[in-house]
Amino acid sequence: MKIGIIGTGMVGQALAAKLSELGHEVVIGTRNVSTTLARTSPDGYGNPPYRTWQSQHPKIKLATFAEAAAHAEIVINATSGGGSLAALTQAGEKSLNGKIMIDVANPLDFSKGMPPSLTVCNTDSLSEQIQRAFPEVKVVKTLNTVNATVMVDPARLAGADHHIFVSGNDAGAKTKVTELLKSWFGWRHIIDLGDITTARGTEMLLPVWVRLFGTLKTPMFNFKIVQ
Amino acid sequence: MKIGIIGTGMVGQALAAKLSELGHEVVIGTRNVSTTLARTSPDGYGNPPYRTWQSQHPKIKLATFAEAAAHAEIVINATSGGGSLAALTQAGEKSLNGKIMIDVANPLDFSKGMPPSLTVCNTDSLSEQIQRAFPEVKVVKTLNTVNATVMVDPARLAGADHHIFVSGNDAGAKTKVTELLKSWFGWRHIIDLGDITTARGTEMLLPVWVRLFGTLKTPMFNFKIVQ
Repeated sequence: MKIGIIGTGMVGQALAAKLSELGHEVVIGTRNVSTTLARTSPDGYGNPPYRTWQSQHPKIKLATFAEAAAHAEIVINATSGGGSLAALTQAGEKSLNGKIMIDVANPLDFSKGMPPSLTVCNTDSLSEQIQRAFPEVKVVKTLNTVNATVMVDPARLAGADHHIFVSGNDAGAKTKVTELLKSWFGWRHIIDLGDITTARGTEMLLPVWVRLFGTLKTPMFNFKIVQ
Repeated sequence: MKIGIIGTGMVGQALAAKLSELGHEVVIGTRNVSTTLARTSPDGYGNPPYRTWQSQHPKIKLATFAEAAAHAEIVINATSGGGSLAALTQAGEKSLNGKIMIDVANPLDFSKGMPPSLTVCNTDSLSEQIQRAFPEVKVVKTLNTVNATVMVDPARLAGADHHIFVSGNDAGAKTKVTELLKSWFGWRHIIDLGDITTARGTEMLLPVWVRLFGTLKTPMFNFKIVQ
């Protein structure tokens, strides 16, 4: 499958590496290819610069947001939430229209220091903002409640005996994404919460997630719904 | 132990019944005792009027907010979030000062219809509002992430193999409340998230909680943190 990933950070890299390993044709989109490749210093989390990772993944193509979107049968929004709308606008409505967009971003606001708060919540969500800006795109929110490593390898925790959520207005798109979460990554327990407004709930899991990260001293955890 | 429960709803009743059964001296506080006892119709959820429940629990005393607070060694805020500050003001700062207050309330906003949003979130929380209004009270947020039945009987779900959180500024109060959650109700897994600002995270779990309630068609569930 032809997959376009919008965003070159840790999350985009983790998804791209796994999907490429599975044999998919992955293009990662960035604002400016030469700027991204010119970076030589680690990012804010101490991860090596993009070009180091790129050199280890030669099958994955780096291109502009617009080229990644045009290439894609399925688009994944893996930008930081604050930059999502600008990046997707650059990707281009015409290239995105009619496609499934898997939105894994969170509207984290680091401007007031750590831990982050949210830039939007409660009566709106990042996914709803994206859906309103791109009404012809089939936005499905998922994977935003776990760390990038867990996203692509849920079996790393308790044999994947924990939950992930999907939210979206298009039932067919949610069914397709649910199948892909299983076949791509091995997710076993997927809960369809409802329409795209239910993304408010999963984005609002982040404040307790960041506190649990602080308490547990690892991002390698997830929520299991126990009945 | 002498326990004062502020609030006569389902949550206050569940906590009062369990604590009375354990032999504690429970006083439930309400705005106006005669008004509460005069109600003859079910509440908005179809639960019988308070006096029906009271007649089945003769050991539990109904009194004013102020009397319940004055009686208490430990106070439990089981009001609806929108009414918490007014009720606690009536309970009286002098009677509350120096005591542990277990805050189980959520700032749910039903004014825009179902599902509820929150009246406060992201950069503040109900527990912080209470702590600011009553700086001499040892506010410990807990139990607000589960239904009243699960609060007092976590073993109803998977042998209590799931989690509850505590948030608060007073370490001794959190240690005490953690012990009480175990000895009173049988909670096995309790995570101390940090100071009272971490209540933002657990209150912000409510939007996904209400959507899960809708999807699972039962309030009998809880979150387990899987590592």
